[in-house]
Amino acid sequence: MSEIKALTFDVFGTVVDWRGSVAREARAILAPKGHDLDWPNFADRWRALYVPAMTEVREGRRPFAILDDLHRENLLTLLDQDGIVNLSPPEIDRLNTAWHRLDPWPDAVEGLTRLKRRFILATVSNGNIALMVNLAKWGGLPWDVILGSEVARAYKPAPEAYDRTASVLQLEPSQCLMVAAHTNDLRAAAGRGFRTAFVRRPAEFGPLELADPWPDGAFDYNAADFLDLAAQMGA
Amino acid sequence: MSEIKALTFDVFGTVVDWRGSVAREARAILAPKGHDLDWPNFADRWRALYVPAMTEVREGRRPFAILDDLHRENLLTLLDQDGIVNLSPPEIDRLNTAWHRLDPWPDAVEGLTRLKRRFILATVSNGNIALMVNLAKWGGLPWDVILGSEVARAYKPAPEAYDRTASVLQLEPSQCLMVAAHTNDLRAAAGRGFRTAFVRRPAEFGPLELADPWPDGAFDYNAADFLDLAAQMGA
Repeated sequence: MSEIKALTFDVFGTVVDWRGSVAREARAILAPKGHDLDWPNFADRWRALYVPAMTEVREGRRPFAILDDLHRENLLTLLDQDGIVNLSPPEIDRLNTAWHRLDPWPDAVEGLTRLKRRFILATVSNGNIALMVNLAKWGGLPWDVILGSEVARAYKPAPEAYDRTASVLQLEPSQCLMVAAHTNDLRAAAGRGFRTAFVRRPAEFGPLELADPWPDGAFDYNAADFLDLAAQMGA
Repeated sequence: MSEIKALTFDVFGTVVDWRGSVAREARAILAPKGHDLDWPNFADRWRALYVPAMTEVREGRRPFAILDDLHRENLLTLLDQDGIVNLSPPEIDRLNTAWHRLDPWPDAVEGLTRLKRRFILATVSNGNIALMVNLAKWGGLPWDVILGSEVARAYKPAPEAYDRTASVLQLEPSQCLMVAAHTNDLRAAAGRGFRTAFVRRPAEFGPLELADPWPDGAFDYNAADFLDLAAQMGA
């Protein structure tokens, strides 16, 4: 087996808590404007529009657009559904960049810092470059390199998203370990020759624990969090 | 004046000592194979082929190719000129990636670490992504994001190299400060609306001090090194 050189990370849900953070940001912006919503549900509904929007790009029905632009279109849909009409364009932009201000899971920074000593740490997120840079500054995430959709011009789980990641790093796919809390992402990465690490994030979708359960052992690593992953990898 | 949010760095010569490091790496690989060259001169001759190779891309006479590929073509030219025929392909590759193992100037890591607390630190180098990632791991350079030629698909001083950098960071050009030891890079960045910091690196081209001298005050900052720049910027 070739030696792992780079860890390539899914970010939303795997590294950061998008649901709790988007709920907090939405409340901070919308409550003072007189709105009282179920804030975690608002985050869930926003997130639910993400896959269909990306699918339009992945299946070639629209040209590549960065995730911030897809998020903004989906946000306008939500605001319309909820009859929210009293936001200025700067307030809408501020709300849209809630996705730039997501808190890391409690173990993330320490685990990444340990893993960074031994491996290249790359983001392979569907988020765009500025979003990833701002998230890293917000949460202190010590990435070596921001890759993913805007560099690859492809959204996971499209094969190009993984292929181009290994290619720009000048690594074989088998030298890359995809780290994610989502089995569909890991299976797609494995299909392109990546090695895989499942990290369980039971709270990603809230208290009902709708997150992916422990998988069936199909992945190279299965970790409870990033500290566990670092320990398993000797970092 | 808009607030500076990101520092965008030239790397070869500004952050790392390419001449001394390439000379060291060339010697380490070629001397055991029976070759005795003027090693700093070998580095100079390799570097001298860099601008004409990029110009072919910039002026549209050949499609975009990453710097590692241009370096390799130029290396084969040099080896041919010097009658060096006893390197295996892996040895040639190892020599070509001498550019991935360049030492930072002594002030670079400390200066960048200070600046990183206040600003986004981005590479805007003509080097490709893997080269920049490996340099950062080699020297401990704390970048927030690797941008530059492979992301912009353009070589400095082409306008697109600067325009696309500001664009992917979602910043106005005036929120970006180009940091370089080379006045041509800074003038091109200023022409696209970037603010500019000249950092003097007198030893870049060796003891004859052929590096750019103190400029005429045309730049926003003029610094003796990165610690000086950090101090001037309150970081």
